[in-house]
Amino acid sequence: MKDKNKSEKKEQEMGSSSTEVLNGENGASLLNSVDAFLFDCDGVIWKGDKLIDGVSETLQFLRSQGKALVFVTNNSTKSRAQYASKFLSLGISVSQDEIFSSSFAAAMYLKSIQFSPDKKVYVIGGEGIVEELHLAGFTSLGGPDDANKKIELKQNPFFHHDKTVGAVVVGLDQYINFYKLQYATLCIRENPGCLFIATNRDAVGHMTDLQEWPGAGCMVAAVCGTTQKEPVVVGKPSTFMMDFLLKKFNVDTSRMCMVGDRLDTDILFGQSAGCKTLLVLSGVTSLPALQDSANNIVPDYYTDKVSDLLQLLGP
Amino acid sequence: MKDKNKSEKKEQEMGSSSTEVLNGENGASLLNSVDAFLFDCDGVIWKGDKLIDGVSETLQFLRSQGKALVFVTNNSTKSRAQYASKFLSLGISVSQDEIFSSSFAAAMYLKSIQFSPDKKVYVIGGEGIVEELHLAGFTSLGGPDDANKKIELKQNPFFHHDKTVGAVVVGLDQYINFYKLQYATLCIRENPGCLFIATNRDAVGHMTDLQEWPGAGCMVAAVCGTTQKEPVVVGKPSTFMMDFLLKKFNVDTSRMCMVGDRLDTDILFGQSAGCKTLLVLSGVTSLPALQDSANNIVPDYYTDKVSDLLQLLGP
Repeated sequence: MKDKNKSEKKEQEMGSSSTEVLNGENGASLLNSVDAFLFDCDGVIWKGDKLIDGVSETLQFLRSQGKALVFVTNNSTKSRAQYASKFLSLGISVSQDEIFSSSFAAAMYLKSIQFSPDKKVYVIGGEGIVEELHLAGFTSLGGPDDANKKIELKQNPFFHHDKTVGAVVVGLDQYINFYKLQYATLCIRENPGCLFIATNRDAVGHMTDLQEWPGAGCMVAAVCGTTQKEPVVVGKPSTFMMDFLLKKFNVDTSRMCMVGDRLDTDILFGQSAGCKTLLVLSGVTSLPALQDSANNIVPDYYTDKVSDLLQLLGP
Repeated sequence: MKDKNKSEKKEQEMGSSSTEVLNGENGASLLNSVDAFLFDCDGVIWKGDKLIDGVSETLQFLRSQGKALVFVTNNSTKSRAQYASKFLSLGISVSQDEIFSSSFAAAMYLKSIQFSPDKKVYVIGGEGIVEELHLAGFTSLGGPDDANKKIELKQNPFFHHDKTVGAVVVGLDQYINFYKLQYATLCIRENPGCLFIATNRDAVGHMTDLQEWPGAGCMVAAVCGTTQKEPVVVGKPSTFMMDFLLKKFNVDTSRMCMVGDRLDTDILFGQSAGCKTLLVLSGVTSLPALQDSANNIVPDYYTDKVSDLLQLLGP
């Protein structure tokens, strides 16, 4: 019995370390076995506002091969419409229906649980969340409207909050402040049954192409710290968004490939859903981090950047 | 063997639930067995800027009985000198040497590990931390100076940070912002060996007398969320401050009584150090919370407010 456990453990270890660098041979086999490519955006398609070299031609090539393309991003600062505009400004035509942002996921999660439109949603985060909530028929408070709010404790204020707030959605917020943190805290602690929803928990992200900045994981942790509650996470690696993708594209997850730059969100998300996974080293994860013995999230394949798909498999 | 474990477990359970409401009899015995009273401040001595009824007379009574008084507060927004002023403004004369704030503890922690004065300290927090660091001979950055700093990501900035920062101290900061979070994150992630020190991790606190506000636990969690590192905590319930108290007052901890309104900081702090413990219900902890079956931090005694000591035991 002991020996069997030991050998099973060894197989798992070997299994978990079986990543391959992408090449012409395994790349062709990947292309043949997949009907849809799911792409993360930051660090994969672009860094900040700069397109990564060769992305445009690679996406065209994949479309020409009849592959469906889906863009799945944890960055909640934009709505799907705003993402479509960003793609266009970078010279890539992408339909709004091909975009699944965590801002959209937050709104769809509330829909999925039949959250009452009579209740309000308090937002720590950007315009993207607010816009998607409104498109889904919900009323929001906070977000960009509270960016410049200040509190003077010396005036011994009593902080009033709206008792009809039934959910707090927390995402990346570069205008995080004490006012928003107090508002969210009071809603979660004092409004009976108030939900606490996180778009995602990424520790950092490439908000500019030059360096990383605190991600939604920072703001979400702050609200956890003061409420001592844990949120429902709707972005990667939660598979909540996958349900929508499955219904929409009607493609079995085994015939999808998730392409991303993060092990703990993108690759884990793809694996949890049963997709094939391709890590690109153009974003957060470095080769040493992938190969670190402490890492136990291992993609099927890895390569430097998205355009390697074109270079290896293109005409 | 099994039975023995069972009976031991039962004893522990019984032991852990043996709190007593303070009365004339056990109060007199407490008074006789103790040489020093350690008081938390927020929710015990005052709420916001309002003294809790009867505190002044009770402290006078305890002094008249020859008891040493020590004020141990996790609130890092003030220095010891600023606390002494606050006491005085409320009509209570307290010497600076009787005050142990977590702002002071942060500075003393750096002293205790012989942190090089050639390195700088980045502060998320208030004037109290900055002042205590300077009194201890350290150079700080951030704190109130960075309260109004903003970042415009659209301008694709590169965020520079000081490479000589060797420690980040995080405490309660009502002017928390994205700039400070990015600064602290870069120091901890990129400056080799940079320390991450938390004054305390209280989830909420009575910054005004009317309601609770996010505490240092909120800002500390935000930095944990983005750095994915855990801090060294110097305030309660860490017993770091107790070493100073022991050296200063030369009183055995078994002859000290910790008086506080929080189970997870004050009472745990007192118990960890071997003090007697008295919970007052004038602050964060309610009687139902004390008696909740999920609670496993149980004080020796509990009572409504500090002045009950005078009422039960006074002349």
